[in-house]
Amino acid sequence: MTFSLTVLGSNSAIPTLIRNPSAHLLNANERLFLIDCAEGTQIQLRKYHIRFQRIRHIMISHLHGDHFYGLIGLLTSFHLLGRKDELHLYGLPLLKQIIDLQLEASDTTLNYPLIFHDLNSEGVHQIYEDDHFEVHSFPLVHSVPTCGFLFREKKPERNYLSGARSFAYCSDSMYAESTIGYVKEVTLLYHETTFMQAMADNARQKFHTTTIEAANIAMKANVKKLMIGHFSARYEDITPLLEETKTVFPNTIAAVDGLKIDI
Amino acid sequence: MTFSLTVLGSNSAIPTLIRNPSAHLLNANERLFLIDCAEGTQIQLRKYHIRFQRIRHIMISHLHGDHFYGLIGLLTSFHLLGRKDELHLYGLPLLKQIIDLQLEASDTTLNYPLIFHDLNSEGVHQIYEDDHFEVHSFPLVHSVPTCGFLFREKKPERNYLSGARSFAYCSDSMYAESTIGYVKEVTLLYHETTFMQAMADNARQKFHTTTIEAANIAMKANVKKLMIGHFSARYEDITPLLEETKTVFPNTIAAVDGLKIDI
Repeated sequence: MTFSLTVLGSNSAIPTLIRNPSAHLLNANERLFLIDCAEGTQIQLRKYHIRFQRIRHIMISHLHGDHFYGLIGLLTSFHLLGRKDELHLYGLPLLKQIIDLQLEASDTTLNYPLIFHDLNSEGVHQIYEDDHFEVHSFPLVHSVPTCGFLFREKKPERNYLSGARSFAYCSDSMYAESTIGYVKEVTLLYHETTFMQAMADNARQKFHTTTIEAANIAMKANVKKLMIGHFSARYEDITPLLEETKTVFPNTIAAVDGLKIDI
Repeated sequence: MTFSLTVLGSNSAIPTLIRNPSAHLLNANERLFLIDCAEGTQIQLRKYHIRFQRIRHIMISHLHGDHFYGLIGLLTSFHLLGRKDELHLYGLPLLKQIIDLQLEASDTTLNYPLIFHDLNSEGVHQIYEDDHFEVHSFPLVHSVPTCGFLFREKKPERNYLSGARSFAYCSDSMYAESTIGYVKEVTLLYHETTFMQAMADNARQKFHTTTIEAANIAMKANVKKLMIGHFSARYEDITPLLEETKTVFPNTIAAVDGLKIDI
């Protein structure tokens, strides 16, 4: 059963010519989930040859622009390209207001059903379930209300040898012991790593995480693999961030726009 | 005195890998005006090496997404990159509400003055003036309230031989005789040409203009040069649109992302 992640943006805050801000495509048994949707995401989807009308669910972790400014453009393109299939949007309540206001401004009535699901940034909540997967949201510690997401394969019935795979997404967050509990033993943990350890003060001030801090969360949660991303635009080459993370948690990879990995 | 136009997006409706939607940078005596700001405009500005913090004025012709979905991202990037200089934004009143709501959602107070100027899509209005240039808005005929913009050099005092240069921008509009009066004898007319003449019915239905119709406006208004743009994504090669326009108005050029011309 397919369970793969494609990175559509590995930068934080502002887009550069080499890295777009946050967006990730998760394929869970051929159902496509878009997780965050920065400006330019629809271009990234085209660039990496993803048939984006197949996306059925979009989750927005929080309302900082580098995680959702590409959403209204993508929703509009779905409409202009004749989409009829329903789309499920998961976000904090203000997101609906932002989308509605912009559709109203352009006098647009979408020709497909857009179903909005309120996220609750306090506590753990199941937000999706089908025969093979379930998704929960959990709270992260950031300067604005922010949700992480946990995708978990249901226990495979026939093959007792292979465990259920899982993916946890921690978009923007400062180092928090609470996160460890939410992402315990996942197959793949994506955790933001905006800064090198030398900028730990800066990271804390801005409610972001460093390389070593992300590695510590991965280690304490005993995850199989860590992916770091959401890099500050100040780092042209992200090799040093990867190397520093690996000193604590060796099984780490770095997000790169266009990278696709099986979970 | 510099008076030049850089095309940042020549497509309509949706971005493709080869053409971005509408955005144009006008340099009028080293003052930078951004005219429309589709999703991805900040990336285009980087790509074409424009020092975008120098932009002082942004005009948004109307509230269809392919003309302003890149605005909030650009305003946010100005902020994150430490801008202090004031920025003047000209748009229809609902635009301010859209921007304010998104800044509120991300708990952002811009660290530079953003001065909003309401556009009035009925009648002709002077919206800007300095020692060398003046700018007027004028009404276009589209499915939502839409403004064109006319940039006009003030009469040069010393050199009576060279006339005052001018640039008219007609973003989204169906063919309208009224437009002819507003753009009379300009040095450069940018006029949308979403469709080939064969799709004239479609154009009218969607309040857009064809090649031949744009050429007729240019001819009847006796402009020096016509630039066509805002091409439907259905046209991969825009040469046929240019050729068709030239059958009526030979001095026509086609907008191409990155093209810079002196007016």
